[in-house]
Amino acid sequence: MPGPTPPASIPTPIAPPPDILRCAYMELVVTDLAASRNFYVDVLGLVVTEEDDEAVYLRSIEEFIHHNLVLRQGPVAAVAAFSYRVRGPQELDRAVAFYTELGCEVRRAPGGFTRGIGDSVRVVDPLGFPYEFFYDVEHVERLAWRYDLHTPGALVRLDHFNQVTPDVPRAVRFMEDLGFRVTEDIQDAEGTTYAAWLRRKPTVHDTAMTGGDGPRMHHVAFATHEKHNIIAICDKLGALRLSDRIERGPGRHGVSNAFYLYLRDPDGHRVEIYTQDYWTGDPDNPVVTWDVHDNQRRDWWGNPVVPSWYTEASPVLDLDGVPQPVVARTETSEMAVTIGADGFSYTRPEDASRAQADDDVLPSWKQGEYKLGHQL
Amino acid sequence: MPGPTPPASIPTPIAPPPDILRCAYMELVVTDLAASRNFYVDVLGLVVTEEDDEAVYLRSIEEFIHHNLVLRQGPVAAVAAFSYRVRGPQELDRAVAFYTELGCEVRRAPGGFTRGIGDSVRVVDPLGFPYEFFYDVEHVERLAWRYDLHTPGALVRLDHFNQVTPDVPRAVRFMEDLGFRVTEDIQDAEGTTYAAWLRRKPTVHDTAMTGGDGPRMHHVAFATHEKHNIIAICDKLGALRLSDRIERGPGRHGVSNAFYLYLRDPDGHRVEIYTQDYWTGDPDNPVVTWDVHDNQRRDWWGNPVVPSWYTEASPVLDLDGVPQPVVARTETSEMAVTIGADGFSYTRPEDASRAQADDDVLPSWKQGEYKLGHQL
Amino acid sequence: MPGPTPPASIPTPIAPPPDILRCAYMELVVTDLAASRNFYVDVLGLVVTEEDDEAVYLRSIEEFIHHNLVLRQGPVAAVAAFSYRVRGPQELDRAVAFYTELGCEVRRAPGGFTRGIGDSVRVVDPLGFPYEFFYDVEHVERLAWRYDLHTPGALVRLDHFNQVTPDVPRAVRFMEDLGFRVTEDIQDAEGTTYAAWLRRKPTVHDTAMTGGDGPRMHHVAFATHEKHNIIAICDKLGALRLSDRIERGPGRHGVSNAFYLYLRDPDGHRVEIYTQDYWTGDPDNPVVTWDVHDNQRRDWWGNPVVPSWYTEASPVLDLDGVPQPVVARTETSEMAVTIGADGFSYTRPEDASRAQADDDVLPSWKQGEYKLGHQL
Amino acid sequence: MPGPTPPASIPTPIAPPPDILRCAYMELVVTDLAASRNFYVDVLGLVVTEEDDEAVYLRSIEEFIHHNLVLRQGPVAAVAAFSYRVRGPQELDRAVAFYTELGCEVRRAPGGFTRGIGDSVRVVDPLGFPYEFFYDVEHVERLAWRYDLHTPGALVRLDHFNQVTPDVPRAVRFMEDLGFRVTEDIQDAEGTTYAAWLRRKPTVHDTAMTGGDGPRMHHVAFATHEKHNIIAICDKLGALRLSDRIERGPGRHGVSNAFYLYLRDPDGHRVEIYTQDYWTGDPDNPVVTWDVHDNQRRDWWGNPVVPSWYTEASPVLDLDGVPQPVVARTETSEMAVTIGADGFSYTRPEDASRAQADDDVLPSWKQGEYKLGHQL
Repeated sequence: MPGPTPPASIPTPIAPPPDILRCAYMELVVTDLAASRNFYVDVLGLVVTEEDDEAVYLRSIEEFIHHNLVLRQGPVAAVAAFSYRVRGPQELDRAVAFYTELGCEVRRAPGGFTRGIGDSVRVVDPLGFPYEFFYDVEHVERLAWRYDLHTPGALVRLDHFNQVTPDVPRAVRFMEDLGFRVTEDIQDAEGTTYAAWLRRKPTVHDTAMTGGDGPRMHHVAFATHEKHNIIAICDKLGALRLSDRIERGPGRHGVSNAFYLYLRDPDGHRVEIYTQDYWTGDPDNPVVTWDVHDNQRRDWWGNPVVPSWYTEASPVLDLDGVPQPVVARTETSEMAVTIGADGFSYTRPEDASRAQADDDVLPSWKQGEYKLGHQL
Repeated sequence: MPGPTPPASIPTPIAPPPDILRCAYMELVVTDLAASRNFYVDVLGLVVTEEDDEAVYLRSIEEFIHHNLVLRQGPVAAVAAFSYRVRGPQELDRAVAFYTELGCEVRRAPGGFTRGIGDSVRVVDPLGFPYEFFYDVEHVERLAWRYDLHTPGALVRLDHFNQVTPDVPRAVRFMEDLGFRVTEDIQDAEGTTYAAWLRRKPTVHDTAMTGGDGPRMHHVAFATHEKHNIIAICDKLGALRLSDRIERGPGRHGVSNAFYLYLRDPDGHRVEIYTQDYWTGDPDNPVVTWDVHDNQRRDWWGNPVVPSWYTEASPVLDLDGVPQPVVARTETSEMAVTIGADGFSYTRPEDASRAQADDDVLPSWKQGEYKLGHQL
Repeated sequence: MPGPTPPASIPTPIAPPPDILRCAYMELVVTDLAASRNFYVDVLGLVVTEEDDEAVYLRSIEEFIHHNLVLRQGPVAAVAAFSYRVRGPQELDRAVAFYTELGCEVRRAPGGFTRGIGDSVRVVDPLGFPYEFFYDVEHVERLAWRYDLHTPGALVRLDHFNQVTPDVPRAVRFMEDLGFRVTEDIQDAEGTTYAAWLRRKPTVHDTAMTGGDGPRMHHVAFATHEKHNIIAICDKLGALRLSDRIERGPGRHGVSNAFYLYLRDPDGHRVEIYTQDYWTGDPDNPVVTWDVHDNQRRDWWGNPVVPSWYTEASPVLDLDGVPQPVVARTETSEMAVTIGADGFSYTRPEDASRAQADDDVLPSWKQGEYKLGHQL
Repeated sequence: MPGPTPPASIPTPIAPPPDILRCAYMELVVTDLAASRNFYVDVLGLVVTEEDDEAVYLRSIEEFIHHNLVLRQGPVAAVAAFSYRVRGPQELDRAVAFYTELGCEVRRAPGGFTRGIGDSVRVVDPLGFPYEFFYDVEHVERLAWRYDLHTPGALVRLDHFNQVTPDVPRAVRFMEDLGFRVTEDIQDAEGTTYAAWLRRKPTVHDTAMTGGDGPRMHHVAFATHEKHNIIAICDKLGALRLSDRIERGPGRHGVSNAFYLYLRDPDGHRVEIYTQDYWTGDPDNPVVTWDVHDNQRRDWWGNPVVPSWYTEASPVLDLDGVPQPVVARTETSEMAVTIGADGFSYTRPEDASRAQADDDVLPSWKQGEYKLGHQL
């Protein structure tokens, strides 16, 4: 149920933002811990660092910090924290000051909010998302050389988060205040921004802001080394008769140029498997802006985006574990302008006029997929 | 326009069939030779053995015979010949006797019907398809070691044909008389056969019989070495803003276990890119029968089959170049029973009862794709 | 200890040879069954069909017959049988007649010589190798679709054997009498043949004859789907600190054009991992003859062949389990002419004169490898 | 000709170092510009941004700055500059101050030393290497999405440099003063450091310091996306009968865990092709120290390092284009302790005593490779 519209813009704090290193882990609340453990460990091959009856702490093959994902048993499937590692312990004071100035709820736990992690700050940010910042962390074995433990679909790194928020430009401005930089975005000729990709580490993103009813979590993404690793995950899901877990892909993104796959875990949390985007670490890294009517922006091969991918996402929790109210997006949605009743995408620059053209312009094998209006 | 229904079964000739070695080439009639040449040569990287104003003779990287594909300019996009190589020159006499006994139209050209090929027999078979048989052929350089010429999506072999025919069991029985063996098929509990894969060489098929209005050509398939080669083809099509050429995939087949991609050429002829099926050369090779309601049969990952893939196919020509009349399939179609108004597929054995169940049983990201009835 | 020289040529029997389908399995005698099981099962991932205290029956992922490899505990590491599947049960009579006419020792076991296999014939052939022929076999699950069981380095098929024999032309003529065809060989300008590749199934080989002291077994080869699977095996061996098992490679063969790796099992038996050779099934398949002085023949990248690869091989047993005497090769050896004290290879056609040239002609990073006599 | 020994340590300047972003390009002097252009453009597929009679400016597929490699015609094959991009224009003043305080020769070119690059500083550093720092640069098209231009072995990024210097600890301390961090190194129990890997960007390195007679340039490395891209380069070199260009590999590094290949260009400059190391961007990234006697440190599969790889390297030039004098390493060399007349490596922890053990401990196929003194 959408709540009240937030103010149009978030003031830039005078306090400097914490120096964020990288997205580090997500804390997911799951409703059936055993089922989720099976999915992330037995199917996807994440490594258990530690576990108990309430939570499982998982990491990817090349990680040396305690975990990249926490599965915590709870009453409602949701995200408890988007956690970032900062460059040093002193950055926690900065985080406190930064968010306090913004009037956000801020909590600090010198002993950490989860196992394996020390002094931490958690906040609910002005966009309604629960964030964590930490530097102190327990080191564990980096399994990069442990090929005896690698699976055909080995996940090597946590790559990024993706957040759903109603007003993308507002979110982007805030994230820039927090020290993020935009690498790519999707816009239209009228100036509407549908999504933006933002980074701290020099990849295409640590997180993305996707326009929609929010705050919600769109997905969390892990990286593999090669494309065949992603295909191996699909093949294994087929063998286990779990192909229903595949929501979209595999495919090549236009945005980011990465090879991708979207899965849904037993609670419906969306997980992306992702590989081979590009270096973005130069201050003048060119921003790539995609036209929302370019049907290769989301899938470089023009394959359709399934509607659930646009509409479904996970709730996020406040610091007391209560689901955050969701605010409706008021601008046009990407789904509506690209696969709505009247419009569909173009695949070549000269086809911009297609929006007004007859359905017959698209080949038959593309038409059905883009005509969403009378599909569902 | 469907013609009259053929007799229910084709008599087995007394004359022995020719000893067929492998599918060797397809002769495609194209309406714009330059556009087709661009697609097969510049985009897909097939090698031009020879060409003139009327035809282009193409081969794949590992081929040593003159061609695997002939593009011939003509008034209507169609297939002029499914051409098989036989084990020796004496097999041509057998082909003549075999088809003559069946009352088929049979023509023999001692100098060949195309460049690069000698003594050949062409027939229209009892199913209405134009076949060619030859042994004598010009050898050309096998480019297997010429890595300086290989592209990221290099096509290495012609793998198979796929034919659309109304009555699959009738077609299968005839192909078995011709010496083919079934490796896999799709059936339902009522005994309807929807498709069958048949081989001479020890791969999953040299051709498949797909149930539908026929005779028509469903696709011609080329093999790559690895899966990334197929992905490279998609990526290149995206770069050339030709993603519309991608009709379905890439994906993993259930049937054949191969990794696949379906493209449509400038005339709409369907081309599959295919890699990594399995050895089938033992006489007792186990036949794999798939339930038509198993939604991993066509795509192991459960991704939907686009309707055009079921309904569209290329006309085939008689020996005078006249399109063959098309006979309607009278049995239920695979599309109708798997993605029709009421039914959809199951992904797990225990879900067989789903056919009677509510839509809500399938996850939202699969529902829209399988509910074809009110989609188009 | 070399025995007496055999007669220069083996007469062609009047009896027709058995119709051989493919190389099917090797029976290896190993001196430490547990160690060998660990290597083939835990490291290489072959699947145990059945086992007891004396033997382990293994198969590759795509196999549907009972086994592709038998490990049998015994006093001396050796090969008990190179086993071929024939096209039907009647071929066993032919095998008996063929080898009996040649004066070979022939034994028939209606209940089979190993578990899982029925009526079989074993012989010691005129070259001194123990062969088996069978048709009747127990079918087991083909694990092609069981991606949940696949490892990063999954072995999918038995591909070929490789035999060491003193007189390659003599061996080739005999194998041609047995129905094999040569696909590639290595010769020199003086007419010496150093090795030949022979096939029944339409790949580059079911077996190869390598010139050297024999009869001995050079290697048994399993196929993977892709090149990264072979790399994964190396990576895993490194992780297990078993890199000593890697004898040569990975690399690209000139002969066969396949990507390869050679391992040594705990007894020193050589195992090749191999992928992506080419179709050879046409009767007029062009034979590729390599110059022994072409240093890309064994490794397309010009990487050196380690001496042990040329000199070491496994004994073979007679039908009573006694090691066969080894006859010395009298012709020049490939190692001697390619990496001996004075000679080394050329990498370009115009460099044929290099054999007489100064060391400085080869770059320093190639010299040491080919100049074994006075290296550093 | 070795010059005088430098002072044991370089003082840390009071001036802060420039904030270095990443290794950006190398300027190579080549003696035959056409031959070098052929190698880097026609064989390796680097993209020409601009060229004239004296120089060719090349970039990798994913680069957006003007070039990653300059080939400049000159009288002697050498390195004119190791060029780093800094975080902003103000860093050039810092570079000037930092190196001036150290007494180095420093030159500044407001219009740049090469085409496409603006305000730049060049220095000869205390280790004798010519460095460049710049921020201002011309942007060019990032060809990441231009799959129509990608080759099977596409080079996507400049990854790192590698420098030969006599005293590695001295070099490391200086590089740390310049803001680099060590990620991995090779040492022995006596405390000798043989090599160290240092990074600014969060990969394993922007440069490495390799112990040997220096200053010299060991190699420059470009990254591919996947391992098969590196194999494709080898295959193409084979097809072009240029396999002599392959000096070492392909293989898996122990250090860095990357997949690698070493080539030699027409002047003998060494080029590495490299893929898939790991994230090192955390301040507490664990340093990996390898024992020089671990024979998987340089090649994870235990394959030998060819002597030329240890001993050969390119001269570097001073700012007037005069080759720098080379100072001899006085500590033991890695080659001497690992493949010298008496010593060889161990492959398992328990084999540390092997250095004193008999040759027979190593399998025959490894002995020859590590026992260089009395090999065969």
